[in-house]
Amino acid sequence: MEQYKYWLSEVKWPNCDLCGKDLLLTREWSTNEITQILYTAEVLHQMFKDNIAAVCFNSGVAVSQFRDKSTRTRFSFSFAANLLGLTVRDLDEEQSQVSHGETVRETANMIAFLTEIFGIRDDMFLGEGHAYMKEVAAALDEGYEKGILNQRPGIINLQSDIDHPTQTLADLLHLKRYFGSLPNLKGKKMAVTWAYSPSYGKPLSVPQGLIELMPRFGMEVTLAHPKGYDLLPEVIEAAQMNASESGGSFTMVNSMEKAFTDADIVYPKSWAPYSVMEKRTALFRKNDRKGLAGCEKESLLLNAKYKNWECSEEKMALTVAGNALYMHCLPADISGVSCKEGEVTAGVFDKYRTLTYKQAGYKPFIIAAVILNNRFSDPAGVLETLRKRKTKRVCF
Amino acid sequence: MEQYKYWLSEVKWPNCDLCGKDLLLTREWSTNEITQILYTAEVLHQMFKDNIAAVCFNSGVAVSQFRDKSTRTRFSFSFAANLLGLTVRDLDEEQSQVSHGETVRETANMIAFLTEIFGIRDDMFLGEGHAYMKEVAAALDEGYEKGILNQRPGIINLQSDIDHPTQTLADLLHLKRYFGSLPNLKGKKMAVTWAYSPSYGKPLSVPQGLIELMPRFGMEVTLAHPKGYDLLPEVIEAAQMNASESGGSFTMVNSMEKAFTDADIVYPKSWAPYSVMEKRTALFRKNDRKGLAGCEKESLLLNAKYKNWECSEEKMALTVAGNALYMHCLPADISGVSCKEGEVTAGVFDKYRTLTYKQAGYKPFIIAAVILNNRFSDPAGVLETLRKRKTKRVCF
Amino acid sequence: MEQYKYWLSEVKWPNCDLCGKDLLLTREWSTNEITQILYTAEVLHQMFKDNIAAVCFNSGVAVSQFRDKSTRTRFSFSFAANLLGLTVRDLDEEQSQVSHGETVRETANMIAFLTEIFGIRDDMFLGEGHAYMKEVAAALDEGYEKGILNQRPGIINLQSDIDHPTQTLADLLHLKRYFGSLPNLKGKKMAVTWAYSPSYGKPLSVPQGLIELMPRFGMEVTLAHPKGYDLLPEVIEAAQMNASESGGSFTMVNSMEKAFTDADIVYPKSWAPYSVMEKRTALFRKNDRKGLAGCEKESLLLNAKYKNWECSEEKMALTVAGNALYMHCLPADISGVSCKEGEVTAGVFDKYRTLTYKQAGYKPFIIAAVILNNRFSDPAGVLETLRKRKTKRVCF
Repeated sequence: MEQYKYWLSEVKWPNCDLCGKDLLLTREWSTNEITQILYTAEVLHQMFKDNIAAVCFNSGVAVSQFRDKSTRTRFSFSFAANLLGLTVRDLDEEQSQVSHGETVRETANMIAFLTEIFGIRDDMFLGEGHAYMKEVAAALDEGYEKGILNQRPGIINLQSDIDHPTQTLADLLHLKRYFGSLPNLKGKKMAVTWAYSPSYGKPLSVPQGLIELMPRFGMEVTLAHPKGYDLLPEVIEAAQMNASESGGSFTMVNSMEKAFTDADIVYPKSWAPYSVMEKRTALFRKNDRKGLAGCEKESLLLNAKYKNWECSEEKMALTVAGNALYMHCLPADISGVSCKEGEVTAGVFDKYRTLTYKQAGYKPFIIAAVILNNRFSDPAGVLETLRKRKTKRVCF
Repeated sequence: MEQYKYWLSEVKWPNCDLCGKDLLLTREWSTNEITQILYTAEVLHQMFKDNIAAVCFNSGVAVSQFRDKSTRTRFSFSFAANLLGLTVRDLDEEQSQVSHGETVRETANMIAFLTEIFGIRDDMFLGEGHAYMKEVAAALDEGYEKGILNQRPGIINLQSDIDHPTQTLADLLHLKRYFGSLPNLKGKKMAVTWAYSPSYGKPLSVPQGLIELMPRFGMEVTLAHPKGYDLLPEVIEAAQMNASESGGSFTMVNSMEKAFTDADIVYPKSWAPYSVMEKRTALFRKNDRKGLAGCEKESLLLNAKYKNWECSEEKMALTVAGNALYMHCLPADISGVSCKEGEVTAGVFDKYRTLTYKQAGYKPFIIAAVILNNRFSDPAGVLETLRKRKTKRVCF
Repeated sequence: MEQYKYWLSEVKWPNCDLCGKDLLLTREWSTNEITQILYTAEVLHQMFKDNIAAVCFNSGVAVSQFRDKSTRTRFSFSFAANLLGLTVRDLDEEQSQVSHGETVRETANMIAFLTEIFGIRDDMFLGEGHAYMKEVAAALDEGYEKGILNQRPGIINLQSDIDHPTQTLADLLHLKRYFGSLPNLKGKKMAVTWAYSPSYGKPLSVPQGLIELMPRFGMEVTLAHPKGYDLLPEVIEAAQMNASESGGSFTMVNSMEKAFTDADIVYPKSWAPYSVMEKRTALFRKNDRKGLAGCEKESLLLNAKYKNWECSEEKMALTVAGNALYMHCLPADISGVSCKEGEVTAGVFDKYRTLTYKQAGYKPFIIAAVILNNRFSDPAGVLETLRKRKTKRVCF
């Protein structure tokens, strides 16, 4: 019984109507709306465990477009679509010559005629990914208004240059489950810190998403990174505002140790130098492939100055009871395992491996929850009907 | 009610049994058969709008094979399959080493064991694409006769060297809706004209398909192109015959202006020079990759002599009331937008943008209609049952 | 009626509980278990012919990973998944940077959250493919035990360095149908022989799988190959043991003619020289791409010494009544058709073409049978329920 408390009104269901609301940035969603996504995801997770089918569509297509490599999110999106009865179709730009500009409007309509949801990843170039998603959104709005489209598909940001909301919502759900409830997160100290990586210049979206989202639930977030590894100014501002409004806090330091001290949660993760991110976009706009490769080298050379930014047993000892919750969006660069020197020692990672995998396991249900809320005005009613109907997912 | 008039016998349903009939060329289909596809597509379209599920298969596979790039048709095929309850599996020749000759027979059978429908695009080489489809058809016939296959999958031409029937049928449906009925198309003047493109040597199938199909519905079709941009002689002959049989007409001129004058509909679209098309096939058969690249350059050089073949405001002014219906199969080369100089000015395209997108939006339903007619002897009965059953597509 | 005799207890259903049992090597499965897979496949085949839906899942994902090219098995896996109601998602390693080592454990979990079944092909490197599958299996075991996964997906070997069980089980079913029953296979002489191929150094898994499996059903298997074309010693041992335990026999000779003499069945098929297989693995582990290409050349040079190892009319004349059953896993290298000189003459192949295609047609049902047995404790009960329910696959 306990697992279904959400719709059995043992918690207060926020009753937000999210129908038609795209998920591009968590900043555009109220705390109640985010809470409703979490509740929906938990119910869908429990239904899956209880072998109750969550099929809400007899037919329908979910389109995904990945402009950067992906395993976890790609499969999570597929899992979510499948769980609800949708079929995934990838837009492969090499098979179809899509480019920015005039044709975004056209292509967006062409692949939307029978589509319920779009999932888009475009995360490598500052000023590009989120702008692209907004362009798609505007095209779909116009297509629907003009009667070209029979329905306005929803859009889910599967990682942009600004935010990675399905990741940070899965992270938030992980924290909720680990600490027992959302209210329990109040006052928890979380270190969001840069870490050394030898692999490539990674997007800024995960740390940016975390520092914006977590203070809204009363958490005390400290951001730590070496000089030159700044995040987008607009995100820093939003993080500060969210903290002051919610009773949480947001602090910036330039030392991993300082951030770890007395932390309840640590999230050490690499990202590219800000200068490299800016240069990358300029080269991308000039379509300078050689320049982009050089840029990548520059990123790794800069990174190499900060190899001591590693999440080690010593640094973990600085945290509350030496036992903070270690988090990572995966894959982590594990020293001596996936690389010589990386973001985290093998010992620390091994201790938390199972927990990081569970953290990742919430993402399919978060995405399914966003789809459900995007397509239905009364998601609680849909879940209630599914639960009562008790159609088995595995039929026998 | 109005939307369901077809099965409510307010129009005369042609009652053709198309079960098992491949769609390779519209020339092989009677006017009644084509009309039935249009009616079926309209009903499926309306059912989609009314949220009535059209699932006709509890399981089953639709195989697609694209030997040329595609966005619109690829997604249209996927949408159609999904609408009816089929799952799409692409045959990716790089993953599977399929080639012409002996192995077509084998591969066709191997990918047909549980398959309901094949969709094939093979459009770049004269004498190749349609021949390939016929080879697949023969292999499936034989496989079924010999008991290798449990069912004979249908075949849909998704663009060959000769015809592009799902495009031209969508175009015809667009015309039917725009002018109110099929009988209303009688006497309408349509200009099918070449237009300048800087992008690549495009297939001949769309103009060929149009000049064959439209005269059959009483339209007065004028084909216009510069010298050297001929279409297949067999198609010209068929167009002439269709015109004389149906009361429509078919004329050829060498001036865009002449074709546009007093036209009710204009369809300006680029295609490759005939000499280049012939050379391309020869090089393809010798597997001469370098030669093929050179061929492409030759095509663009020739094209560049006819940059004035652009659909402009001035040329549109020549049409009936300066207001002919502009059509395009998309994507169009739009001057100053997707290229410096192209097939159509931005002003003309913008005026008709929404209409061209709607035109494209019929294709998924045309393909679904072809599948439905190919698999069921009584498609009207199937539609009637679906309509009465009223199972929702989006379930809640 | 006859077709459903299995569950009507006109044959003795083995009643094995295979739930949760991976299919990596037939050697790990009892003869009863294998028999049950065959019975299940036959029932599913008959249900398909009778248009009875076999959908056992309302949602669920089947993940496939192909580390070598595939048409037949790729489609067979898709067909099988679709038949039972699962959606296939390919793990494309280029889109996702999966590699051996630490990350196998992680990736296996990440793509398993809502997954029912994994199908894996990894066949080119001795000591690699089966090891990889066991690594995935261990990762999934651990993930399920630790509560990361909600269910433990099954694993199906779609061809490894050691065995190709879905192929050899389809072969066995073909033999059962051809000779009327499994008991009828007792004493049948089968020649599993190397044959010349100019195409590439093929995996050892098919001949290895055959010599292990067929003696278990009382067949008298002769393996023939030129010197240097040995199979894995552990497989030879297993074949000998199986033969002595089951009343079948296993013999090795170095002449195609000897093997063909008095054979009831011949299975002539190329594979790479053992020395090349060993070298290939060493080069693969050093990631030596150039070396691997050289290795391929070496393989073909060696092969060319044995062009007379061709299945010809003359050799077929040596078999029982000159009329042995010719078998091949396809595609065959057919002399004068797909290559100048190959594994089999066009005449012999043509005579048996339909039979080889039917042989291939059992594979989708074998894979579906393995999935059904892996996911349900009482597959006979599931089939009985489906049969009684009589939901149509093609609904109208």
